[in-house]
Amino acid sequence: MHTIPLKLLTIIGESVLEDRLVRFLRDHGARGYTAYDVRGEGSRGVRSAHPDERNVKITTVVSPQVADAILEALAREYFPFYAVIAYVEEVHVVRGEKYI
Amino acid sequence: MHTIPLKLLTIIGESVLEDRLVRFLRDHGARGYTAYDVRGEGSRGVRSAHPDERNVKITTVVSPQVADAILEALAREYFPFYAVIAYVEEVHVVRGEKYI
Amino acid sequence: MHTIPLKLLTIIGESVLEDRLVRFLRDHGARGYTAYDVRGEGSRGVRSAHPDERNVKITTVVSPQVADAILEALAREYFPFYAVIAYVEEVHVVRGEKYI
Repeated sequence: MHTIPLKLLTIIGESVLEDRLVRFLRDHGARGYTAYDVRGEGSRGVRSAHPDERNVKITTVVSPQVADAILEALAREYFPFYAVIAYVEEVHVVRGEKYI
Repeated sequence: MHTIPLKLLTIIGESVLEDRLVRFLRDHGARGYTAYDVRGEGSRGVRSAHPDERNVKITTVVSPQVADAILEALAREYFPFYAVIAYVEEVHVVRGEKYI
Repeated sequence: MHTIPLKLLTIIGESVLEDRLVRFLRDHGARGYTAYDVRGEGSRGVRSAHPDERNVKITTVVSPQVADAILEALAREYFPFYAVIAYVEEVHVVRGEKYI
């Protein structure tokens, strides 16, 4: 089956950031996204002061260039201010042309 | 730790397709699956006419051969008719023999 | 963008195991996690006796050494007794130093 290698970018942050992060992804070139609620604790090893606080996991399939642009902007605009986690994986996508 | 390299196949589509997609996966050789509700927008860059419409994300761990058979059948039977997204990742699985 | 290659470890099991699995991950070196409810069927190809039973998917970003330690301990302490699935993927993480 013909697939195209692309990047699956995952961002995890507080639920209140969802709309803003979705706009942010679009502004940097993402053409779609998936979001769902998660619970958890960050890598700082301490429970949040608000343990009931919901987090959101947002994933988007993008080109390597768009992934890089998003990570650069996240590092500049979000990481100094919010407990946001981001990582990138290699995926092989059917009809991947749609994402470029 | 001994692991086996396999394929993690992800399909995202409208929630109404869930039962059908699960049967479809089984019919093409998948031996298990995980499903959960997500929200989001497709890669066509337009909001759905039904923004409240739920999507489902289904993942399954399969052999490379089964992954390929599923993607081929998806491209033939789903992609022309439904807004379905599919991608494959490499995963390393403990007790991977169970999935082959 | 500078990223660090790490391991994304995923565990899927019965929801009743969540708290125990989270403690287990911490005890073996994980510094954070994400959990969410999923439905599905295992790789044994039979429906559970309790089809409404909820499963939980737990993911954590860890170093290769911690991933290996967790998989070894899972194989020893969980796999003989519970229908638990575990797999590992390679991810590239922004500010990955936090996870080591």
